[in-house]
Amino acid sequence: MIINTGYGHGGDVYSQPIRLDFSANVNPFGPPEPVKAAVRAAADQVSAYPDPYCGPLRDKLAALNGVARKDVICGNGAAELIYQFIGALRPKKALLPVPSFSDYEGALAAAGCAPTFYPLRRERGFLLTEDVLAHISPETDLLLLCSPNNPTGRSVPRGLLLSILDRCRETGTWLFLDECFLELTDEDKAFSLADRLRDGDRVFLLRAFTKAYGMAGLRLGYGLCKNRELLDRMCRLVQPWNVSTLAQAAGLVALDCLDWPEKARRLIQKEKPWLCGYLTALGFEVLPGDANYLFFSGAPGLYEKLRARGVLIRDCANYRGLQPGDCRIAVRTRRENEELLRAIQEALDV
Amino acid sequence: MIINTGYGHGGDVYSQPIRLDFSANVNPFGPPEPVKAAVRAAADQVSAYPDPYCGPLRDKLAALNGVARKDVICGNGAAELIYQFIGALRPKKALLPVPSFSDYEGALAAAGCAPTFYPLRRERGFLLTEDVLAHISPETDLLLLCSPNNPTGRSVPRGLLLSILDRCRETGTWLFLDECFLELTDEDKAFSLADRLRDGDRVFLLRAFTKAYGMAGLRLGYGLCKNRELLDRMCRLVQPWNVSTLAQAAGLVALDCLDWPEKARRLIQKEKPWLCGYLTALGFEVLPGDANYLFFSGAPGLYEKLRARGVLIRDCANYRGLQPGDCRIAVRTRRENEELLRAIQEALDV
Repeated sequence: MIINTGYGHGGDVYSQPIRLDFSANVNPFGPPEPVKAAVRAAADQVSAYPDPYCGPLRDKLAALNGVARKDVICGNGAAELIYQFIGALRPKKALLPVPSFSDYEGALAAAGCAPTFYPLRRERGFLLTEDVLAHISPETDLLLLCSPNNPTGRSVPRGLLLSILDRCRETGTWLFLDECFLELTDEDKAFSLADRLRDGDRVFLLRAFTKAYGMAGLRLGYGLCKNRELLDRMCRLVQPWNVSTLAQAAGLVALDCLDWPEKARRLIQKEKPWLCGYLTALGFEVLPGDANYLFFSGAPGLYEKLRARGVLIRDCANYRGLQPGDCRIAVRTRRENEELLRAIQEALDV
Repeated sequence: MIINTGYGHGGDVYSQPIRLDFSANVNPFGPPEPVKAAVRAAADQVSAYPDPYCGPLRDKLAALNGVARKDVICGNGAAELIYQFIGALRPKKALLPVPSFSDYEGALAAAGCAPTFYPLRRERGFLLTEDVLAHISPETDLLLLCSPNNPTGRSVPRGLLLSILDRCRETGTWLFLDECFLELTDEDKAFSLADRLRDGDRVFLLRAFTKAYGMAGLRLGYGLCKNRELLDRMCRLVQPWNVSTLAQAAGLVALDCLDWPEKARRLIQKEKPWLCGYLTALGFEVLPGDANYLFFSGAPGLYEKLRARGVLIRDCANYRGLQPGDCRIAVRTRRENEELLRAIQEALDV
């Protein structure tokens, strides 16, 4: 919760009249019906405290990801786990490629760490490249990566990611890899480190239900990590009941709907080039993103003009390393995407 | 969430077969019907991120408590706010009367603080007395109080609480007062500091929906505090979306059901002496508690015997300053209380 100003994210459909939200990168179909049904059914079970072990949910996540239950940690949304991981690690020297999701920096600041920023270059399409390897030294306590990255949608190339993993193992550097958008990422680019984890590895993989299952309001995320000591420290930093009964019930059911993100992924793979073509034709510079959102530049003032029309996109000017006119939009259904394009066209015509 | 062992609380109805839970101190009637209806209705709104400002909920809480919206902070259950408050304050010297709720100590440990324990004496019925005042010095960064206290049910006497407030103002000590059980506390003992708060005061009042509205599984708590700087620091320690859409919707509706805790309070005031009489007759030493639970001693082995019968009470042996045979039970409906007494009788007869 935030008290006053300082909300620098998308998805605020509460403090302003919004009819179309393209600022939050969630499944365009929302949650699958069984998830909603599970929430409705669980309404009768809220009197008791939630299961502090998240037992059945972690069992299911472990089986799906080929790890043990003890390698799975659940959180009140993936965002909580970012703060919890960094709070437990309390790194002195952290390497953070930017632009990236601002809560990494927020969580580092909360733990008293001023990170070293590794600038992703606009002229390289914000792609992470091999030269990052030279910046990982034995003094680097932590490298934070998001793949596909938020807001650019660029994935870390598979070969590079494996080289980074090797390099981090050599230097004893923790690798925090945010894989929250993986299920909605183009199939040929979606690549997880889950099956590379070794016992004791200093690797933490972050996952969310938010995006893939369209349940941001329910708050449910998880982490995969085979470093027992770090997980123990993380658990001691928060209450035992951080994952609500409703989130646990919904998560369990969501995992029976693996075709749901798949269906969205297929839509997105179809809509993305179409949307991309139109945006390019309108004069914007669109990045070839791999995720369920698109990053484009050259639209100063567009955010405000769209907001005035009840359409919310993500103004990216407040991301470190970005500038006015940089924007991010979710890829949604054809009908909504058409509405967005119409609103953009109108905004540009004014 | 916790990964392995180490859950030292009541309410674990998941890892064991339990038919009657007297270990969690929640409203015996569960949540009011409108709260359940609000959860069911909100199931259709979980696609969007929650309101990071908790706007409407904080407005309502502010109005009910006679403070401003900016004096209200919401959390993912009151328990999160304990960790968040202590994480933001990072006290060097904290004074903690014991026995008390173990997560105060857990949160202090997470912030690297080893508190000074102030032992509440069994021979005084664990009542906080005037001599605590002499322990509050300018070096005391923080005094943690819970009134009525958990697990003893003893309130801090009104006059003493006001003296403590004065003393803390003199010494610049932060007063963290957990008022989570207030709405279910005997009316003549329920006393809040809410209307004593002054601008800038180093006072934090903790409140929960968990107990009064029987919605522990939903996770919703809040704090009242007129120290802007501390609240700002607290907000920077956690994600913006820690309070789920469902919790916000349920909380808003709960506050229209102020008669719900009142109804439970009336039941509890009637049941408590009855239950107390029976327990005393069975040979236990029962504390005259003010809250919706009872603390009694002289029952070593009772917890295990009841658990084997599917009845969960709170074994208090793991509270600092308590011993085997110390137990806590919630006060519930007559039918359930009778079942509990029957189970106890059976357990004793074996």
